[in-house]
Amino acid sequence: MTQYLKNTWYQAGWSDELPPYESTISKPLARTICEVPIVFFRTADGAVTALFDRCPHRFAPLSAGRAGPDRIACGYHGLEFGVDGNCVHNPHGPVVSALTVRSFPVIERHTAIWVWLGDAERVDPALLPDLGYIDETPAPARIVGYMPTMANYQLLTDNILDLSHADYLHPTSLGGFNTAAKTTNRQDGNRVRVDWLADDCVAPPAFRAGLNGAERADMWIEVVWQAPALMTLTFAASPAGAPRRPEDEGYTLHNMVPETATTTHYFYCATRRFKLDDERFSGFLKGALAQAFNEEDKPMLELQQARIGSHDFWDLEPVLLKIDGASTRVRRTLQAMIEAEAHN
Amino acid sequence: MTQYLKNTWYQAGWSDELPPYESTISKPLARTICEVPIVFFRTADGAVTALFDRCPHRFAPLSAGRAGPDRIACGYHGLEFGVDGNCVHNPHGPVVSALTVRSFPVIERHTAIWVWLGDAERVDPALLPDLGYIDETPAPARIVGYMPTMANYQLLTDNILDLSHADYLHPTSLGGFNTAAKTTNRQDGNRVRVDWLADDCVAPPAFRAGLNGAERADMWIEVVWQAPALMTLTFAASPAGAPRRPEDEGYTLHNMVPETATTTHYFYCATRRFKLDDERFSGFLKGALAQAFNEEDKPMLELQQARIGSHDFWDLEPVLLKIDGASTRVRRTLQAMIEAEAHN
Amino acid sequence: MTQYLKNTWYQAGWSDELPPYESTISKPLARTICEVPIVFFRTADGAVTALFDRCPHRFAPLSAGRAGPDRIACGYHGLEFGVDGNCVHNPHGPVVSALTVRSFPVIERHTAIWVWLGDAERVDPALLPDLGYIDETPAPARIVGYMPTMANYQLLTDNILDLSHADYLHPTSLGGFNTAAKTTNRQDGNRVRVDWLADDCVAPPAFRAGLNGAERADMWIEVVWQAPALMTLTFAASPAGAPRRPEDEGYTLHNMVPETATTTHYFYCATRRFKLDDERFSGFLKGALAQAFNEEDKPMLELQQARIGSHDFWDLEPVLLKIDGASTRVRRTLQAMIEAEAHN
Repeated sequence: MTQYLKNTWYQAGWSDELPPYESTISKPLARTICEVPIVFFRTADGAVTALFDRCPHRFAPLSAGRAGPDRIACGYHGLEFGVDGNCVHNPHGPVVSALTVRSFPVIERHTAIWVWLGDAERVDPALLPDLGYIDETPAPARIVGYMPTMANYQLLTDNILDLSHADYLHPTSLGGFNTAAKTTNRQDGNRVRVDWLADDCVAPPAFRAGLNGAERADMWIEVVWQAPALMTLTFAASPAGAPRRPEDEGYTLHNMVPETATTTHYFYCATRRFKLDDERFSGFLKGALAQAFNEEDKPMLELQQARIGSHDFWDLEPVLLKIDGASTRVRRTLQAMIEAEAHN
Repeated sequence: MTQYLKNTWYQAGWSDELPPYESTISKPLARTICEVPIVFFRTADGAVTALFDRCPHRFAPLSAGRAGPDRIACGYHGLEFGVDGNCVHNPHGPVVSALTVRSFPVIERHTAIWVWLGDAERVDPALLPDLGYIDETPAPARIVGYMPTMANYQLLTDNILDLSHADYLHPTSLGGFNTAAKTTNRQDGNRVRVDWLADDCVAPPAFRAGLNGAERADMWIEVVWQAPALMTLTFAASPAGAPRRPEDEGYTLHNMVPETATTTHYFYCATRRFKLDDERFSGFLKGALAQAFNEEDKPMLELQQARIGSHDFWDLEPVLLKIDGASTRVRRTLQAMIEAEAHN
Repeated sequence: MTQYLKNTWYQAGWSDELPPYESTISKPLARTICEVPIVFFRTADGAVTALFDRCPHRFAPLSAGRAGPDRIACGYHGLEFGVDGNCVHNPHGPVVSALTVRSFPVIERHTAIWVWLGDAERVDPALLPDLGYIDETPAPARIVGYMPTMANYQLLTDNILDLSHADYLHPTSLGGFNTAAKTTNRQDGNRVRVDWLADDCVAPPAFRAGLNGAERADMWIEVVWQAPALMTLTFAASPAGAPRRPEDEGYTLHNMVPETATTTHYFYCATRRFKLDDERFSGFLKGALAQAFNEEDKPMLELQQARIGSHDFWDLEPVLLKIDGASTRVRRTLQAMIEAEAHN
């Protein structure tokens, strides 16, 4: 049985996956997180509700039902449940206390929906990750994606924590300088940060457009991981020798949300502080990321998972290289957090 | 290991799934019932034979072979088996006693093929359900269906025993009055009967055509279950206030035959005593039932099964409502019959 | 856990599945044999290398990488491995001894690639099967095939060792005389030979073209099996009463290579000593074999496997007929060889 960190916020989706209530003509959103099936729906006040997606009567998924202004109705026998998970209408008799489903705390922030699977008494909005860079970026300049992937979420975390892979897997778009870059990682409490610095290198094609076509650049990348599997990647590229400027920076969210032991919801959002009005650049970047993530990362991650099969990752005795420093720290940190939680 | 009632007749199919021998140009019918693979074929005298569908020589399915006038030949090495399951021809040597497959008693009645999986000494044609209403209905007025469904057969039984679901799952065709109807159920030996009575209600669209378009009606529905999962649904609709008349009645067979623990052969046949020559009405009804069963029931039943997974139904502690009275009676009755059989 | 014979040569593919290095624009060949994933690639000198297809770093399949002149590079992080499986380049630090994958001895002969999964100290090229008939047949007169099949390889072996099946499964092409033929089998060390002799019989359609259309013929077929599952079928057909002549003979390889317990790589190659320049005959034969193997054998073998499921073949107590003499000898011989190997 796979164990997951429970007392944390998991991204359930992007806000626009649940349209405003007025226009709700489609079904609620069903999404399984950490093997727990959950239905998400928006009530008339705009808030998002998350309930265990299994009616206590006959076990139909509530997500196959209809969301109302303040409730969701099971599509099979019409039982209706309010935002706290308690039954508010039983067409067939009295509302008894057993007619309840677990409700999960939800916060909507940073254009995303976040759900808490852990102990109710430990819910803490302060634990939400700060993704202010998404809010500060005008919507047209955000590249937003959702990529379900048939691999364990920790393989997806490894992928972002070791960017050297870009040189081999994404040579025509994102890679080229990482292997030769100076890289360090350090831990600050439960956060792990990795830096990649490369001076006067050949800028990868996807970064060149941001440099107005300059071929040589100074590149900086920093990745900050926080549990369980959320990473913000900050990058900056300047023409070689020019100073690094905040206005040249970009910030990309890479959030790996476990669905099951071998499947992951991968949410990403690329933002930037430059060329904000340049729709052509946004289109170019969107295409480059889709190519890199969907056509290159995803097949490799799924093949990797297939080769690992049901083996435990460590039991296969991976050979640890220098580039695995951050991902090893992260795997151990997360494992310790999961174990600490299990013993509390 | 799922247990099934054995000393009973299971419907294996509809008679016309096995065309007359003269025109046999297609393969015999392979159908797995209660996890037992069976091949059905029609001999020259028109009778149907049922044999274990695995050749004792190399385990090829006999259903991949050719049915002859009084035998079936394995398509792999030509061994031929008669209607009693004994080998009648071995092209490669003597017929030895080990060359035999189990044969199953079969009866063809009510336009259907029935097979007995239980003890040979308990075979009893008197246990065949009486479905005379099928025979009494001219073929053009019968709506006959076969719907394989990826859900346990008891979920399909529950579905028919609690017709309140029609109000939520089939609101545009069959539902609308059931939740408000007076409903009672009672047990008579091993039969369970549920009644639904609604006076002066809005007639569901699928019934309105039978009322010559009247919108308000008195509705009666009775469902009689008999083990293991065969139900006859009798309905009558009259313009509100008019007396109930036998000539307004319709009878529908709903027969749920387990294929495996999570898959079911659903056979249905809707008959009626009115509008027997009305082909347009038959076509309308056929479409309405296909919509309700295939597009509405089947997806919900399969989602329900997916949520239950491999859990035992009772272990999930379903909340029992008033509308579950009949299905609970039926589940307990069937369980007791299966256990009694296992101890005899 | 299925056991396989290890100290033997398994055919991994046909030589032309790995084009010459100069034209290598496609990926290396990934093929799982006896449940071991292996990557095959051709180096600049034309030789074929076989390595365990899982990078020791993060377990990506090497077959998703790029083959170079004397090495293969993992497509994920650029580790490069030489033909002996040792890492020859680590872009991220020193080459440590743990950075190695198992390499497997390979021989390319008879237009095929052969791999040794067993003990390194027992590798013996002399154990390679002699398939000189392939080399002696001009390429245009060879009918070469690869048919992956979802059945245990021993079922495919049984199929060739008991050709009586052709009379029932391939009546329009290859069958007709086998059941009535005189058949004997004998064992010579670890080889098993089966003979089929039929005088003055109706020649099967696929053989008739070789007889210039004569309908009656004397037929000879000999099948020689050697472990684990390689068979050469020699056939000769002469107009009835005419002497058997070597120049009328044909030789067909049937090689069953286990992929997993329930899937098999079936390699075949039909050669002959007559009509070598007759392209029309080659085309006819190619079509006849494709029909027999793909449309008739493969579905039957897969249905047979489905009926056997996860049962052990002998546990199901197959009824042994005279025609099973050779396949029973072979199954017992192979089982003894596997057990002997396990105890050495």
